[in-house]
Amino acid sequence: MPSSGPARTAKRLAQNSPGSAAFDLQHYLKQRVQFVEQALDRAVICRDVPGARLLEAMRYSLTAGGKRLRPILAIASCEAVGGDPEDAVGLACALEMIHTYSLIHDDLPCMDDDDLRRGRPTNHKVYGEAMATLAGDALLTDAFKVLARTRSKRADAAVILEVVAELSDAAGSAGMVIGQALDIMSEGQPTDLDTLEYLHARKTGALFLASVRGGGRLGGADPAQLQALTEYGSALGLAFQVRDDLLDVEASTEQLGKRTHKDDAHGKATYPALIGVEKSRAFAHELVDRAIGALAAFDGRAEPLRRIASFVVERAL
Amino acid sequence: MPSSGPARTAKRLAQNSPGSAAFDLQHYLKQRVQFVEQALDRAVICRDVPGARLLEAMRYSLTAGGKRLRPILAIASCEAVGGDPEDAVGLACALEMIHTYSLIHDDLPCMDDDDLRRGRPTNHKVYGEAMATLAGDALLTDAFKVLARTRSKRADAAVILEVVAELSDAAGSAGMVIGQALDIMSEGQPTDLDTLEYLHARKTGALFLASVRGGGRLGGADPAQLQALTEYGSALGLAFQVRDDLLDVEASTEQLGKRTHKDDAHGKATYPALIGVEKSRAFAHELVDRAIGALAAFDGRAEPLRRIASFVVERAL
Repeated sequence: MPSSGPARTAKRLAQNSPGSAAFDLQHYLKQRVQFVEQALDRAVICRDVPGARLLEAMRYSLTAGGKRLRPILAIASCEAVGGDPEDAVGLACALEMIHTYSLIHDDLPCMDDDDLRRGRPTNHKVYGEAMATLAGDALLTDAFKVLARTRSKRADAAVILEVVAELSDAAGSAGMVIGQALDIMSEGQPTDLDTLEYLHARKTGALFLASVRGGGRLGGADPAQLQALTEYGSALGLAFQVRDDLLDVEASTEQLGKRTHKDDAHGKATYPALIGVEKSRAFAHELVDRAIGALAAFDGRAEPLRRIASFVVERAL
Repeated sequence: MPSSGPARTAKRLAQNSPGSAAFDLQHYLKQRVQFVEQALDRAVICRDVPGARLLEAMRYSLTAGGKRLRPILAIASCEAVGGDPEDAVGLACALEMIHTYSLIHDDLPCMDDDDLRRGRPTNHKVYGEAMATLAGDALLTDAFKVLARTRSKRADAAVILEVVAELSDAAGSAGMVIGQALDIMSEGQPTDLDTLEYLHARKTGALFLASVRGGGRLGGADPAQLQALTEYGSALGLAFQVRDDLLDVEASTEQLGKRTHKDDAHGKATYPALIGVEKSRAFAHELVDRAIGALAAFDGRAEPLRRIASFVVERAL
């Protein structure tokens, strides 16, 4: 008799579990991305109800691909402390829903006014500005439902509630949104390195940190592990942003599937603009070393986190 | 020695507690509104940080007054089952933050394009469209932090987590946002009563329901009480919307502090347009009777809920 869906999934994930002898990062990423995308597919369902065009608009952006880096980090952090991917799947979906909403709103004409995202027309280009605004609002709101309905074998309700609080803290007026506000306010303004780091720590760093800390909590992390994951996540988030700045300079629109060289066009401060391309590259590598160093006390189950850190700074997309 | 701040607040709230002999609704509302506004004032603080204009924009709309009906309903429901106002204060703030975000986004040029709200220029008129969009996003996100950090003497973490899930369900793609999407999509379209009721149950009803159910849960409601509060909240939410439709026809812009007769201008279906003014009034009263009837098994502590129901349908604002 063939095994059932969930059992089959568990078996497939276990075959390439982090601690196994021949760890293959690409294989790991492919499996976890598939796992997350199946869960996202269930999180927003296009039911036949009045107003279903909203659900369609939400799915349009949510299923548009992307690296799914935040969900992967949540799952890898959960696994690094001994949890299963299933323990972090609610958080993984919530993170990607929040990331996706932020992209939809960022692309709006009143914000960055972008036409292209992940190689496809942006949400408002397809569904109009009003529906795109609402699709973003709904993805953000629904993210907390998906997370709050999480069940983890290794975390009780009080822990899940703390993950909810940390995620909203990271995504709201103390984190991602104030970073975005600052980004808009500082366009064309002279910016120093401290201000740039402050901005990135909020605009992208906070959600990265919530991914690894939340994943760790749901996997049953002890305080020392949570502290190590915090150092890992802080360094990795900044490394990701430095690499993003570099990619905007280096890559073509065709490669990235979104408009490039736009930082320069918008008069936005970036690491390459402030310290040059070579020093930016060196800084990104230094941050990745710092991230990997923070995991020194972890065993082989943290191998995906270590390898993802290297991947982030080497990525061409 | 004078009593401390919280003790003084508790004493003042207790002096006009729901079960006391001479219950005065206006006094009750005034005290609870003050209690909620003090908590809202602490929920979003204008710190001196880069990007603080975002916090200013959030406070601009959050402190603009209004009836604070959803927070009051949460607190009154909590008190009706024996809880204290403090047990529901986190939910009360979260509800008002979500309601306020929805008004900011609704007023945007790509949505209803309104210039006036609560007698003042709308958020985007003062802060610009980008900042208004972000202020709405941040209020919505922060709402879940405030709720998740709630502590109730009568509800454990599992109950609070369920309140989080119900609130996001009510505010997201199954509730308020799909109601708003449907509202936009059906402008100028012929609408029947069933569709109108479906729309209102989501656009405004879902958040009303989350207010009374959530308040009840945080006050320690048993399943029968929760069921009664559900019937009360469903009927009251619809009554509120019918009254809102009537007010748009009856009142002047000066009285309401926002543009009126706009339903007609936008070609929106309303109860008065579909069944006439007199039948709409009768329907609103019938719904209020239904709401009050649902509370038959409750004692004097539910008096505020009963009186608020009558107030909702008699209000001129």
